[in-house]
Amino acid sequence: MKMSRGLPAFPRTEYMRRLSAVKSDMAQRDVDALVVFHASNIAYLTGYTAQSAYVPQALVISAQREEPTFILRRMDAPAALHQTYLEHGNVVAYAEDLIANPEKDGYDAIIDCIHELGHANRTVGLEQSGDLPARVLEKFRTRLSKARIVDGGKSVHWIRMVKSDLELAVMREAAAISDAAIMRAADVIRPGVREADAIAEIIGTLVRGANGKVGTALAQISLCSSPRTGTAHIAWSDDVFRNGSQINLELGGKRHGYCAGIMRTFSIGAPSDRLRHVHEAEVEGLEAALNVVRPGATCSDVADAFDRKLEKFGLKKESRCGYAIGLNWTEPTASIKHGDMTELKPNMTFHLMLGNWIDEDFGYAISETFRVTESGVEVLTSAPRKLFQL
Amino acid sequence: MKMSRGLPAFPRTEYMRRLSAVKSDMAQRDVDALVVFHASNIAYLTGYTAQSAYVPQALVISAQREEPTFILRRMDAPAALHQTYLEHGNVVAYAEDLIANPEKDGYDAIIDCIHELGHANRTVGLEQSGDLPARVLEKFRTRLSKARIVDGGKSVHWIRMVKSDLELAVMREAAAISDAAIMRAADVIRPGVREADAIAEIIGTLVRGANGKVGTALAQISLCSSPRTGTAHIAWSDDVFRNGSQINLELGGKRHGYCAGIMRTFSIGAPSDRLRHVHEAEVEGLEAALNVVRPGATCSDVADAFDRKLEKFGLKKESRCGYAIGLNWTEPTASIKHGDMTELKPNMTFHLMLGNWIDEDFGYAISETFRVTESGVEVLTSAPRKLFQL
Repeated sequence: MKMSRGLPAFPRTEYMRRLSAVKSDMAQRDVDALVVFHASNIAYLTGYTAQSAYVPQALVISAQREEPTFILRRMDAPAALHQTYLEHGNVVAYAEDLIANPEKDGYDAIIDCIHELGHANRTVGLEQSGDLPARVLEKFRTRLSKARIVDGGKSVHWIRMVKSDLELAVMREAAAISDAAIMRAADVIRPGVREADAIAEIIGTLVRGANGKVGTALAQISLCSSPRTGTAHIAWSDDVFRNGSQINLELGGKRHGYCAGIMRTFSIGAPSDRLRHVHEAEVEGLEAALNVVRPGATCSDVADAFDRKLEKFGLKKESRCGYAIGLNWTEPTASIKHGDMTELKPNMTFHLMLGNWIDEDFGYAISETFRVTESGVEVLTSAPRKLFQL
Repeated sequence: MKMSRGLPAFPRTEYMRRLSAVKSDMAQRDVDALVVFHASNIAYLTGYTAQSAYVPQALVISAQREEPTFILRRMDAPAALHQTYLEHGNVVAYAEDLIANPEKDGYDAIIDCIHELGHANRTVGLEQSGDLPARVLEKFRTRLSKARIVDGGKSVHWIRMVKSDLELAVMREAAAISDAAIMRAADVIRPGVREADAIAEIIGTLVRGANGKVGTALAQISLCSSPRTGTAHIAWSDDVFRNGSQINLELGGKRHGYCAGIMRTFSIGAPSDRLRHVHEAEVEGLEAALNVVRPGATCSDVADAFDRKLEKFGLKKESRCGYAIGLNWTEPTASIKHGDMTELKPNMTFHLMLGNWIDEDFGYAISETFRVTESGVEVLTSAPRKLFQL
């Protein structure tokens, strides 16, 4: 049987460009084979977005071969053939008896493949080797005893921080979905309505999408309403909305794995003076932060602009002000926080996450997803920056 | 500020019963403090279900203390106070500057706490220590050099395999939601309809729930339609359903973290002879497997009954026939597969997952979530076991 190919998220040339950047980095580090484990980096380099990362899988990038080799569970191999540009021979399916098998597992299949590709006596980079399960790192060391094993670090994560025009187009589509979901929330959150009924409508928008582009997956949603506005990451509850309730909402559209995060705060009835004060401070802080964004500024500069403005209002935010966003909601590279000296470059994208959990019983949420342009900033999300009064 | 408490998923006595079982196990192994990392085990022992496991967090169970100590990020501590029975002093919030900090992280806060609890010279069990990130295990060994560090294994996972009546009640609620979502799928999957529009309706049911009980979170959904029925774990696509399409659907209701999985296959128009043949074989296999379920039988017996039946139809299934289910979709304990000699006990619950990906272009999906009773089996999911023709 020949698997039918889907329409790829991006053309093959785009993936080849990405691979080529990774191979240049490998050459600089004298790495012959890089073993990529992170699902988001596998998606970046191949287009694969099936939900199979709960079992071992890896992409092996060989300096000498055009295409990488994707080793994954037999059950998931057809999805790799469907979603990616990879030649049939470059998708290696390991047998199902390696699942839930304490003797031998998918990592053994990955190591077997590294042997077969001829890298057993070469320099093998393991992506974020210190984050690998201890027994897995040990297995690589034991079964590749003649290889020089080095830490591959977060090199793919750093390479993908700067987005291509094609990626940005997808992130704009995701951002339009985020905006639509916020506006839907403003329509459906009403006193007496169950949180679950409102969330069903909001998720409906996240899936049906915007401008004819559907949401192709769901990102995590947090809905923290009174008396839970001091919490950051809880889902909706069994509860109903009430007069006087405040609702902090965090959500994001998703297209082909790419997220665009947004947070907004809603008030059923007139907001308290305290909430109004925090909102005013945070919006001014948000604008001050965005004003600083340009190539050459640092992440620390952006956070400092926000922190200074908030201080004028007698407030502070303890948590970081954001992070790189794209194929992960939270890309593990730069953070928008004091002391992070990462220099902004054109086409980096960030979630400027200004959620502020001020005390156990009270918090506030606002955020935008933005892109660094050649001279400043493009804010991808565009829902009104208001305290929605319902 | 005093955090307002939510209505807990279970009464405190239920959590104390669970804790007591873990402490008995610790006593047998001479473990003074068990460090629990898995989010599902933390949920089991405290009721905490906020989505914060992407940063370090742990529950430390001290043999000598009534309540465990929950160490988590400052931003997430209010959710712990809201969702759990824990005394304020037993929720330890670590500072936000440990996030995205290469020098010192949340694991340092966990280790600090182990010192403060007086366990630094005692026997400390680390849950599934071999699965901890290599650098984290090293940090525990270095910073607790006077402790005797032992592998805590999957002891909490094994303890929670047998569900209480309260847990089973929640799983029945989840299963009713699963059934409702399957029936909704049968209503909305039609030729010309976008996959996303159908999924929005199906998810709407998963969230709005059944019998007045809402879905409190979403489990992963796979919708694999022609020509993608050979895939197992992809989401919906940009595509529309077509006459002649086959659709394999896997989903599950979720209540307070507990899942009940179900799979069904749909055909728009008359199914092919091949599909009909596979369906007949699989339903007979499913029934044969369920007939074997009783205390004292093994997981292997259940799988063998299915395999034998399938063989009579000239078919086989390469992947395992299921796994323990509950607070995780896939509990990492027993598998329903040939050779797994785990003995069935009353109130164990499994996802009898008979999805069969026969070749790259063709697969079929059927499954049920069941409970082992005192004398046989209770199937929790109850949607018709048919090949839905739409």
